[in-house]
Amino acid sequence: MRKTCLNIDSLRTTLRWSIVFPILAAVVLFAVKTGRAQDAETARPFGLVIHGGAGSISKDRITPEREAAYQAKLQEAIEAGYAILEGGGSSFDAVETTINIMEDSPLFNAGKGAVFSNDGTNEMDASIMDGRTLNAGAVASIKHIKNPISLARLVLENSPHVMLVGAGAEEFGAEHGIEKVSNYYFFTDRRWKSLQRTIAKQDSLNKAASEAGTPAKAASTEKGTVGCAALDKQGNLAAGTSTGGLTNKRWGRVGDSPIIGAGTYANNATCAVSGTGQGEYFMRLLVAHDIHARMFYQNKALADAAKEVIHGELTKLGGAGGIISIDKNGNIAMTFNTAGMFRGYRTNSQPVTVQMYGEE
Amino acid sequence: MRKTCLNIDSLRTTLRWSIVFPILAAVVLFAVKTGRAQDAETARPFGLVIHGGAGSISKDRITPEREAAYQAKLQEAIEAGYAILEGGGSSFDAVETTINIMEDSPLFNAGKGAVFSNDGTNEMDASIMDGRTLNAGAVASIKHIKNPISLARLVLENSPHVMLVGAGAEEFGAEHGIEKVSNYYFFTDRRWKSLQRTIAKQDSLNKAASEAGTPAKAASTEKGTVGCAALDKQGNLAAGTSTGGLTNKRWGRVGDSPIIGAGTYANNATCAVSGTGQGEYFMRLLVAHDIHARMFYQNKALADAAKEVIHGELTKLGGAGGIISIDKNGNIAMTFNTAGMFRGYRTNSQPVTVQMYGEE
Repeated sequence: MRKTCLNIDSLRTTLRWSIVFPILAAVVLFAVKTGRAQDAETARPFGLVIHGGAGSISKDRITPEREAAYQAKLQEAIEAGYAILEGGGSSFDAVETTINIMEDSPLFNAGKGAVFSNDGTNEMDASIMDGRTLNAGAVASIKHIKNPISLARLVLENSPHVMLVGAGAEEFGAEHGIEKVSNYYFFTDRRWKSLQRTIAKQDSLNKAASEAGTPAKAASTEKGTVGCAALDKQGNLAAGTSTGGLTNKRWGRVGDSPIIGAGTYANNATCAVSGTGQGEYFMRLLVAHDIHARMFYQNKALADAAKEVIHGELTKLGGAGGIISIDKNGNIAMTFNTAGMFRGYRTNSQPVTVQMYGEE
Repeated sequence: MRKTCLNIDSLRTTLRWSIVFPILAAVVLFAVKTGRAQDAETARPFGLVIHGGAGSISKDRITPEREAAYQAKLQEAIEAGYAILEGGGSSFDAVETTINIMEDSPLFNAGKGAVFSNDGTNEMDASIMDGRTLNAGAVASIKHIKNPISLARLVLENSPHVMLVGAGAEEFGAEHGIEKVSNYYFFTDRRWKSLQRTIAKQDSLNKAASEAGTPAKAASTEKGTVGCAALDKQGNLAAGTSTGGLTNKRWGRVGDSPIIGAGTYANNATCAVSGTGQGEYFMRLLVAHDIHARMFYQNKALADAAKEVIHGELTKLGGAGGIISIDKNGNIAMTFNTAGMFRGYRTNSQPVTVQMYGEE
């Protein structure tokens, strides 16, 4: 019977496949594995870097409790932004979320922790820039918006403008349903006492200057700001900055934080930058745009461009402050000429890191 | 007698000198003249260039009377600034004086001729920069200052700040005795009618957009601004810009005119620039600072740098406008991608020239 016959041809085929199949399977598995490894190596880098202000930040001026609070809040902000990037979200979203967390904390001079102006109110500035489109949004001298960076984003996305200031900017926000709060929301005992101290100091400076017949110096040396620069998996860069400005400020003073090219800049061709420090110097030097320009026109590495601008130009002109930046390849720079800067970062290749003092 | 004797030696000496002296004199005169000519050639160049706004300026849209009025006012402004430079004055003074003349004329969208905001008031912006020190002053959203550029200069010279906005900026001006005027000073029938036309146009755009469920476009295409860039005999550059902004503007919109690096920039190392056009694009591109950067980092000539930024970057991004600029060697650029730009210049080597249309 055919059924019981030993079919030599069939046996030969079976034997052939029992040898060929494992080899074939091994080859396929190897190819897949190698491909995955190559994917990991060539995967686009991503990550973000933040700051919470530069200035006379040193270990002997901060209590251990306060240091721990800064450490925890900076890390929380970094992790929240990083989670967005890791999940494939945009650098633009990561920047806004990260800054919102710092704005909502009384620790930093932005949003909830904003310093007081001379008239006892809080006047805030913010800006955000999208490195893919070069679109930008900025607001200045606003008093009743809980999260200024989100209003800046609204300006970018829902108006044909880049910059809105004062009550008009708040009116625009109201038309788009952004959260308004009483100016009292921004009251913190710490900042109020700081205003009283600065006013007293300014009075004595004014008196001395008046007696000597010279112009009075400014008493405030407050340099607080928060900022974030991020690179997402799509290779898009974004940067944002938010601030309460100077303690005891007058005359509707606006610093570099809401000025595109001075305190904030992002361009997919090079890097994303956020600055903090004596805003007037950052405005005169176009610090953020100058770092881009040195990379773009001179092929400088981010670290070198940042060093030249902060330790070169800014220091030469007599200004104090720093920047955080991430470039299109995921390289991080945190460069400052002050004693310290609240800062930190996380990238796909580097774990979360938070620093405060001069261990640059 | 010795007296009557023909003294051959004496005669020979006289003859010799009668030949040698004219030759010697000719040589000395020639040397002096050549020296003077060389002095003139090696004298430091100086001069200035101005604009009165870019846009749809064409011969068929302007009456001969109006053309003559623009011609005369632009020339008056140029000559006033040039006289300061020729007399050894600073480029900084020349820029302020030149812009004051255009601010005081109802022909231009700055000072007296400022356009109306949506609420029927006039909100003006201005900035000025000193290329020697990189000092800068800027004001935005001011309503009662006759000459905004002079308030910007006051900010530079009498405050530690770069930018003041709104009522605070006016308060600062009042403390320093700057001329305040009623907002009614800025009323001109022409601009008022323009506001009414723009409001009507915006209403119909809003209605159409609402019916189509799309965002409404902005009706205003006003791009007026005035600006000046100057080089003095000491080799110092300065630039300034003053504007009434957009007709029917809302929400405290601020354009590029008061933004250092966007609408105004000066640096003795390269050039002085003032821009005019769709401010939002100038802010995103940092037009004025980018022209400087291309000269500084790439050794580009002013004309090439200006062309790359205006006809390259600005046009690519979809923006319209132009710049005027003078470099440290006295070279002039007047570059725009609009139909026309009110403009003119005078230098120590070129006579006064005024242009309006597209004969770039």
